[in-house]
Amino acid sequence: MIDVERITITDPADPRLDDFRDLNHSDSRPDLPGGKGLVIAEGPLVTGRLLESRFPVRALVGFRGKLDAFLAEHEVGDIPVYEVTREVLAEVAGFDMHRGLLAAADRVEEPTVAEVLEDARTVVILEGVGDHENIGSMFRNAAGMGVDALLFGNGCADPLYRRVVRVSMGHVLRLPYAHLAGTYTTWQRSLTELSDAGFHLVSLTPDPEAVHLEDALAGREKVALLVGAEGPGLTEHAMRATDVRARIPMAPGTDSLNLATSAAIAFYERDRSQRHRD
Amino acid sequence: MIDVERITITDPADPRLDDFRDLNHSDSRPDLPGGKGLVIAEGPLVTGRLLESRFPVRALVGFRGKLDAFLAEHEVGDIPVYEVTREVLAEVAGFDMHRGLLAAADRVEEPTVAEVLEDARTVVILEGVGDHENIGSMFRNAAGMGVDALLFGNGCADPLYRRVVRVSMGHVLRLPYAHLAGTYTTWQRSLTELSDAGFHLVSLTPDPEAVHLEDALAGREKVALLVGAEGPGLTEHAMRATDVRARIPMAPGTDSLNLATSAAIAFYERDRSQRHRD
Repeated sequence: MIDVERITITDPADPRLDDFRDLNHSDSRPDLPGGKGLVIAEGPLVTGRLLESRFPVRALVGFRGKLDAFLAEHEVGDIPVYEVTREVLAEVAGFDMHRGLLAAADRVEEPTVAEVLEDARTVVILEGVGDHENIGSMFRNAAGMGVDALLFGNGCADPLYRRVVRVSMGHVLRLPYAHLAGTYTTWQRSLTELSDAGFHLVSLTPDPEAVHLEDALAGREKVALLVGAEGPGLTEHAMRATDVRARIPMAPGTDSLNLATSAAIAFYERDRSQRHRD
Repeated sequence: MIDVERITITDPADPRLDDFRDLNHSDSRPDLPGGKGLVIAEGPLVTGRLLESRFPVRALVGFRGKLDAFLAEHEVGDIPVYEVTREVLAEVAGFDMHRGLLAAADRVEEPTVAEVLEDARTVVILEGVGDHENIGSMFRNAAGMGVDALLFGNGCADPLYRRVVRVSMGHVLRLPYAHLAGTYTTWQRSLTELSDAGFHLVSLTPDPEAVHLEDALAGREKVALLVGAEGPGLTEHAMRATDVRARIPMAPGTDSLNLATSAAIAFYERDRSQRHRD
């Protein structure tokens, strides 16, 4: 363990704590490029992943004990480290931040779609997913189950929103992603870029007329799996631009699965289909 | 639509609304048998499922428009229906109940394990699952994916807790379940009852030494799938009492999946294994 110089701050109004101010409303910051907030990591696991990510960390803040434990395990270089009490952090953040460790980083330009697709064999594409928890779970499951990248079609929420970072357990900071250009009715044209790159495009739908997921994925070398929002699902525009519509079999008279759960099943099936391929 | 007599209540203190009072704390009611609360359904979907369930409904309460829509579609017989304003319901429930429709029912004796297992071919058994959201999602996924019943080992939260009912989308009111008797270290002995009934007992674990889920389930007529809490997982006691330990393959350096998601994948694999059986 290298001794890191820590700066103790006792005044909640100290401007060095501005990155961590009013966290419940920090996701939109008119003063920052794009009007969006910084990337905020909460807790040691996610903070560690932020440090290893492409996002340049601006500062760490935490309680003494939490910093002791974290700094014993992680190199922070010359990133400023601010030690505060629970009371000071609560005052700054706007609520009791019991995890006791936070980091803030700058956003960076995202890679191009072509860069994200290079070397990728399994990607997931989201359309109209506005729910932060669903996006976070999607990243967590995708990372865990061998998906190489995520692409965003139209109408999805900000993947660097604080809640997404937390629910994803920091995997949104690691797994490559990019946004496909276009509006509600035009973004689907970008899918030709994936077809041209050899991806088999699969729409996930609760439609009982669709083919079984197993049959949709069997024997495919490169797969792009499209998932829409809970409720409306994928647009007809998007599904028409894909090669096949696939369903997870459901018992009659029940509800469709949660979005991230459906996707996780598809990731499992994708992995499983490859198991018998080689 | 049969005209149902509705009683308009304007006084939040009216004792006829007592079943719906202080909902955030209603799950524990020392005045009721077992010291547990009533079964509370929120919103039209779950209220409809409560009406069709084995739980005797005591009363419905809702806003005028919500009751109009609900009563046009459902038979309520002689169950009292109370019409209230949003303000009155907020005062009674303790928060703004924007769904605007609630029902309360009595708890009933649960079936025996033997009754639950009769005719069942796929069951899931939970151990130490204290998280209400996980239990609710488990019921939702189990119902959707052809699981016949749930059994509770030691240390699980109350499946009729209000939040479980909501997250399960009411499936906890429909899918049969029962509790296995015993303490933390003894309940696992009840598993012999399942073995005797011909169930293949499968522990779900993140252990990389475990066999692939596909291999654990292939060709089995009756399956009981054991799932433990996120974090600690199943106890060694429980796993020892099963026939096989099964894993969902995960990418190295990632986190295990959420409990309900893992289980949903196992339900999918179970269904899939049967697809090629006949």
